Amino acid sequence: MFKKIAAGTLIAAITATTVFAGGHARTPIENAIAARQSHMQLYQFNLGVLGGMARGNVDYDAAAASAAADNLVALTSMSQAGYWLPDSDTGSAENTRALAAIWENFPDVIAKVGATSQAAVAMQAAAGTDLASLQAAMNALGGACGACHKAYRQAR
Amino acid sequence: MFKKIAAGTLIAAITATTVFAGGHARTPIENAIAARQSHMQLYQFNLGVLGGMARGNVDYDAAAASAAADNLVALTSMSQAGYWLPDSDTGSAENTRALAAIWENFPDVIAKVGATSQAAVAMQAAAGTDLASLQAAMNALGGACGACHKAYRQAR
Repeated sequence: MFKKIAAGTLIAAITATTVFAGGHARTPIENAIAARQSHMQLYQFNLGVLGGMARGNVDYDAAAASAAADNLVALTSMSQAGYWLPDSDTGSAENTRALAAIWENFPDVIAKVGATSQAAVAMQAAAGTDLASLQAAMNALGGACGACHKAYRQAR
Repeated sequence: MFKKIAAGTLIAAITATTVFAGGHARTPIENAIAARQSHMQLYQFNLGVLGGMARGNVDYDAAAASAAADNLVALTSMSQAGYWLPDSDTGSAENTRALAAIWENFPDVIAKVGATSQAAVAMQAAAGTDLASLQAAMNALGGACGACHKAYRQAR
């Protein structure tokens, strides 16, 4: 039993030291915003790998393309239930571009996330085949990302 | 064919607008560091959910615990091959705590990552069972995270 409590304390120590660069402990909303932005960052990183090949800036590499597509599918499979806390939109929180419209149109958001997931699965099937297949799958994938951003992310 | 090229251009536009808060475009090393820190951030977020329950700060919720553990397994399943570029350690790059020892001890790093993956799978089996099972699985999971950080992450 002591070991169980000690493990909890270890994790408490790990999470309690989560700080912003500014040095203050994160609030739950700041923590959720950081997590969803990290999730988006990983979409972007793996899309960047595929996009670099699609536009010919990087040589096509079937294994690397497949790995990036697999990563996108893993990301779309993850639960985001902990990320989208009430009052974490642009009207209520700092350092976010998430519009309140997300919370007002949740069924549509879920549908758009589902479309992204489907496009990632299609990319997973295409990415390792050849460059033309990868390029063809990029349309739906880029479109799915863009559809959600256009509707629900504050323009810069 | 035009549509294929247009899709590539769309992704190029998405990735080319990746900027730091400072406003400059990211180098490949900066991009890789941001991606691996995002990956770590998502480990931490999901560990935080489990840790909050383990230490009694948050009521045990089997579904939420399972979702967090599933997320950890998804994260450990992702390829990190694009993250660990040469010259992206503390001796060569800014805004990282990744020690050069990572690149000098790669088989050990892979072993430690494998131990983390195993601990996440064990947590996946335990998290939805009951609180005691979750707490018991936290030992190995916290230990696996800590073992890699102790060896390969610069102390603050």
